[in-house]
Formats: sequence, C-alpha cells, structure tokens
Amino acid sequence: MKEFFKVTDLDTVLEWPAHFARVETENIPIDVSYNRVLAEDVVADINLPDFPRSIMDGYAVAAASTFGASEGNPAYLAVPYSIAMGEAPDFSIRRGEAAKISTGGMLPKGADSVVMVEHTDRIDDATIEVYRSVAPGQNLIEIGEDIQAGETILFKGWRLRAQEIGLLAALGIASVPVYRKPVVSIISSGDEVLPIQEAPALGKIRDINSYTLAGQVIESGGTPVRLGIVKDNTRALLEKCELSLEQSDMVLISGGSSVGKRDFTVEVISRLPQAEILAHGISISPGKPTILARVGEKPFWGLPGHVVSAMVVFNAVVRPFLEHISGIERSFRSARFCYARLSRNISSAQGRVDYVRVKLAERDNILVADPVLGKSGLIHTMVKADGLLRIDKNTEGLDKGSRVKVEFL
Amino acid sequence: MKEFFKVTDLDTVLEWPAHFARVETENIPIDVSYNRVLAEDVVADINLPDFPRSIMDGYAVAAASTFGASEGNPAYLAVPYSIAMGEAPDFSIRRGEAAKISTGGMLPKGADSVVMVEHTDRIDDATIEVYRSVAPGQNLIEIGEDIQAGETILFKGWRLRAQEIGLLAALGIASVPVYRKPVVSIISSGDEVLPIQEAPALGKIRDINSYTLAGQVIESGGTPVRLGIVKDNTRALLEKCELSLEQSDMVLISGGSSVGKRDFTVEVISRLPQAEILAHGISISPGKPTILARVGEKPFWGLPGHVVSAMVVFNAVVRPFLEHISGIERSFRSARFCYARLSRNISSAQGRVDYVRVKLAERDNILVADPVLGKSGLIHTMVKADGLLRIDKNTEGLDKGSRVKVEFL
Repeated sequence: MKEFFKVTDLDTVLEWPAHFARVETENIPIDVSYNRVLAEDVVADINLPDFPRSIMDGYAVAAASTFGASEGNPAYLAVPYSIAMGEAPDFSIRRGEAAKISTGGMLPKGADSVVMVEHTDRIDDATIEVYRSVAPGQNLIEIGEDIQAGETILFKGWRLRAQEIGLLAALGIASVPVYRKPVVSIISSGDEVLPIQEAPALGKIRDINSYTLAGQVIESGGTPVRLGIVKDNTRALLEKCELSLEQSDMVLISGGSSVGKRDFTVEVISRLPQAEILAHGISISPGKPTILARVGEKPFWGLPGHVVSAMVVFNAVVRPFLEHISGIERSFRSARFCYARLSRNISSAQGRVDYVRVKLAERDNILVADPVLGKSGLIHTMVKADGLLRIDKNTEGLDKGSRVKVEFL
Repeated sequence: MKEFFKVTDLDTVLEWPAHFARVETENIPIDVSYNRVLAEDVVADINLPDFPRSIMDGYAVAAASTFGASEGNPAYLAVPYSIAMGEAPDFSIRRGEAAKISTGGMLPKGADSVVMVEHTDRIDDATIEVYRSVAPGQNLIEIGEDIQAGETILFKGWRLRAQEIGLLAALGIASVPVYRKPVVSIISSGDEVLPIQEAPALGKIRDINSYTLAGQVIESGGTPVRLGIVKDNTRALLEKCELSLEQSDMVLISGGSSVGKRDFTVEVISRLPQAEILAHGISISPGKPTILARVGEKPFWGLPGHVVSAMVVFNAVVRPFLEHISGIERSFRSARFCYARLSRNISSAQGRVDYVRVKLAERDNILVADPVLGKSGLIHTMVKADGLLRIDKNTEGLDKGSRVKVEFL
C-alpha cells in the first residue's frame, strides 16, 4: 500500500510562503484601489493641512484677547472681518479684534485660536462679547498637524481601506502602485465529478470544490479561473496543468490527492518543468492528503476532494501563500479573527493540528463558539459555521469554557 | 444663532432602517454571486448525496462480515468486485464478500460500511484479511446525510460566502435570485473643496470624503457613484440632489451640515418632493451634525465635513440603513467585531454615544485596544486605527482593562 511520503508539520509548511515569488505591480487610479495591496511606501510631499484650519464655526482671534473672559466678565472684541470659505484672508488680526470664520476656514495672520460661536454674543454689527477664554491652538488644526511633508504615511504591503484611499486623495495622489491581483487556476479532478449543470447519474456528484475554492480566492483578493473538471487521466491532467501554469500565479487541484489508486496528482505535478514536491501530506485534520509543490516559482496545490477538507486547507494553509504572493506584509489589516468561549469539550488527536468548525453566538456580551460536528464531506456543516478554531498538535483537546481564537469563515 | 432642531438619540435612529424600501432583486449566475445577498429562501429538491458514498479508500462490506475481527483473529473476505469511480455498481455484496472502493465511490447493494484499506491486507488476488470490525454506517455518507430533499438550506437575506455558493453548486442551482447592489450617490459640498487632481490654493482643501465614503460603500457591498463637488449654492445642490435621487438608492452629502451659515443642506433636502427631515443632529460623537431625511422611500444623509466624523457616522449609523436596503437580514454573517481589553482610561460625555478609534494589538494572546487620539479632522488617525469602540450614552468613561467590543474598520 502506498503511503504519504513526505508528511510535513503544518507549522513547517507555514514558514514557506516567503520562498515564492510575488506578483508584479501596476499603477491604478485610486478610485478602483479599494482592497488592493500597496506596492511602494508613500511619502507625503506636502503638509496636511497646509494652512491653519478652523474646526469650529466662530471667530478667529489672538487667544490673548480672551484671557480672563467669563460669563460675568466678557471680553469685547471688534469684528471688522469675515473669512469666506476656501479663501486665504488678506488681512491680519490684532489684539482686541476677531474675524468671523466657519468650520474649515483659514485663520488669518495674527489669529492663533478660534472662539466657538456658542461662547459669544453679538452686540452689534461690529462687536461681540466672548464668555470663555481660549488657549493658543484651540479649535483649529495647525499646519502639518495631520501629516508632515516628508513623512512616510503608507507602507508597501498594506491593503488599502477607505481611509488609506482618503489619505491618498488628501495628498492629491490620484493613482498608486499596487500589486497585480494574483490569478489562481482551479481544477477539479475525478471520474465521478460532473459540471453543475448536468443531472448526475447515480454514483456521480456535481463539482462543488471549483465553486467553494473560487469564492475563497475572491475573498482573499485574488482572481479565480475555473478550468473545469479533468477525468482521472494523467495526460488530460498534465495538459490542464501546463495551461494553468502559463496563465496563473497559483494552481489548485482538488481531488485525486489521496493515497488510493487515483493518486496521480503528485505524479503529474512531478512531470512539470522545474517541479519539486515540498509536502505530500500535511499534519492537519481535516486536510491531511494535501500536496504542495513548487513549480518554477509558483505554488501548486493538490487539495483533498472532500469539500470541508479543501476549504479548511485553503483557510489554514493556502491563504498565507496567496497573501504573500499578493504582496501583503502587514498582518493585522488582513486578520479576521476573534476570541470566544468554547461551549463544550472537544477532543483532538496529538501530533496534528485540528481545525474545528464553530458557530458563533453572542450571549450576555460573551462570544460563544459552538462546535459544528460532521464529516468532512458535508458542505452543510460549513454553511452552519461562522469560523474555524485551531487545536495545536500538542493539545489533546479543549475544555468547555476555554478561551479560543476563532478565524472567521 | 441657529440650533439643531431635531437632535435624535442614536438608538432611536437605529430603529428606523426597516422603514426604508429594499432594492429590487435580480437573477445572477452563482459564478458571480460571492458576497451578494440572497433574495429568496432556497429549498433542496434532491437528497445530498443521493447515493451512499464512501469517505475512505478501502472495501465496501456488510459490517456483520467484520464483527469480531482483530489483529489476532482477522476476518477473511472474498473480493470479487471493484467499484469504478462515478459508476453505480450493478452487483450486490453478500456476507463474507467485499468490493474494492475508493473515496467518493458508491456503495453496492448489501454493503452498509467501508473497511479502511489501512486495516486490511491482501492475501491474494481475490481475498483480503480484515483486522478491525466496522459498524453499520461507518466510513460512508448516507443518502441525504448532508442535505435532505425538501429542506430549506439557505435563507433570504444571507450574504453568500464560498460555502453557500458551494451548496448551491451541489444542488445544481446555477443561478440565484439576489438583491441588486444598492447604488449610493456621494456628493461633497463646500466652497473650499477641490477635486483631488487640482493643486489647492491656500485656504482650499482636496475632496477626501468622496473617496473615504466610496470605499465604505464598496466595503458594505454597495456601488458608489461619486457626483463630485457642489459649491455652497442652493440651486446647484438642489440640482445635484434631484439627479442623485433618480439614479440611486441612497444619497450621502458631506459638508454643509453644521449650524453655521452654510447650513443649507437641510433646506435643500426639504425642497425635494416627499421629503421629511427625520433627524437634524444625532447624539453621537464625533458626528453630531448629521442630517437624516426620507425622500420618498430613500434615505438622504447630510454628513459632517470632518473626515473622521463622516467615516464614524457611516460605520455607526449609515451602514445599518445600507444593509437593510441591501436585503441583509442575518446579522452574524456580516458582523465584523471582536472583544478586546482597553489599554488606558478614557473619559466620555454623558448623554451621547461616543466612538473611540482604537488600534488593536495581540499581546500574550490577549487582544488589546489602544485608543488613537486626535481631532476629527485628522485622516491619519483613521489610518492608524483598526476599529471603533462605542461608549454608551449613560457611561462616563471606561477604565483601563475594561473588556470592550470593537467594530473593525
């Protein structure tokens, strides 16, 4: 009987992503840069703001003009000026003077603070009473307070969220260098697998993995290319692999990776140019019958045929490789996990990392993780689940009430 | 001085989303359905699987043939058959017989379990030794064990993830009814605001909010339409609003919502047909100067001009409305929060809900939330932040070490 010949520890496999090449970069307008990965550090070439800006509606003043002002003893200021929005005032404020200003307006020379309109009363067209003193710098944003010219404001390897795009807009950066979205080819293999449009005869099943894996690729920021189903035929699989090598940055083949007679994925991959089998079997459950090969600079995966196994392996193993290839360097911005309390005991085998599907619920402000049990061929268990929890290889199990880390699904 | 004339409690505002109309539905191929919202319940019309499937490589047997088998006392079985993948066996297994089967293969009549190949030895071409007994039902998936015909398997209002799409594929459902993606028009207002491509003269700033809000709309599953900048001019804003009403399901106008002299957003919205101002000011910080109106069946928002305020209001207030309009009914699947420990004391004013930007870090398996301080006009504080924590209106502040709920940004 054939055995897995290169079963590898999960943690060892997870050290390898950096050995694969990243995709190239391209320049795109920031309008379409949401969720893309920045390919270069961005340095500010201007101060933000580049003028002192009021953050209140009120009066621009020299703070000293208000010192000691109170309800009982207001300061009286002349208001010879009004500042139009979007204009640079061409006058200066002196002690005892104020200029009417709106939120976002530019402070004139001589003014170092803004009195809120709520703390004033108008005496006549040209005079106000001020009931509270302000400190220098109060109610305004100073030049460079948001961003200083020369500062590195965004770093290579970050995924762009709304606020990063906003910051680029603020600096007038209308296009940015990002990593190209990685293209991931997906192949299903097996004589029993049919396109979903066909009504399966007894003994055959529809192709689920092409769809679940494509969804996971999209979720990870990649572009999936479904290459369809290959029968258990070495030549056909080899041709499909050669095609996918040309057009993609990573290849996923599901099915055909067990130790049974259909185990030819590994043989086919071995025949590709510059192919090296890195792992044949990974100490993870579900998902042990996983193959990882390097073909040139690209990762080639043989994933289990069971839908849950394939999805778990994608989350736990494939995604870190895809993120590396995508250029991601900052872990937190792509983290999607929480801590929760386990609702019951779960046992686990030592010597491998176990992944348990869990449903999350909030009870009395406590996040509770409820294990979803079921064989790894049952897709409905993944539909019920909100996340996966990892049980380390040296752990025999987890007790009810344990604090566990859950990765969202 | 003008005041907000209809300041509303945040929790009151959050009761209103259901009063707005949902977008229509459309039918789309499941290939492009990732992250879309299902518009109808899905009922299975077949059993999944519809034949008993092996989940191991080994031998299909009647369990009774193996009872009592052990290393010392193996059962000897004849193997007259081999089951090809994807085929329905046309024979029956009797006591004392076995059929070679692979993972995914269909069990023949008479077989009710599968012996793993690892627990057998081949004696000759036609006979095996079995070292362990199996129970009926072991190592197979029974008919309907995943999904039963007639079962409601997916519900209206769920966002489709990879596994939901996989389940649809498994049932041969190649296209699904989903809600159309809501179109959200975004308008920036203010004489001081310039398109980002222009070099701002002193006193002017680039249009940040159009970009941050567009990013947040995309993040929420909507389609943003940036309608550009409108000067502080009633007629121009009214025209832009009329245009956006025609082409979108929700409208966001940033800037021009304070109580200052530029406060004409509310006047303009009031002039639209069937317009009703629901809130003029919301008891939230940052973000108090927020306007919510219903125009026909559509929500119209006047958002603060400060970039942080506008983003916080989007997250805390606008998003629940957008999710309702999008058809989302299931909260957990779109939840994106965690619990963390607060790294320092923070104070808060009573009578309003405060949102605090926080940076998350993992220290010794504890998730720590570090407040990011800074004025609400400073975009860099949002770039630093990973999430927002909410301090309720009856709370004066939170102590260092408190367990807090953080919504991811």
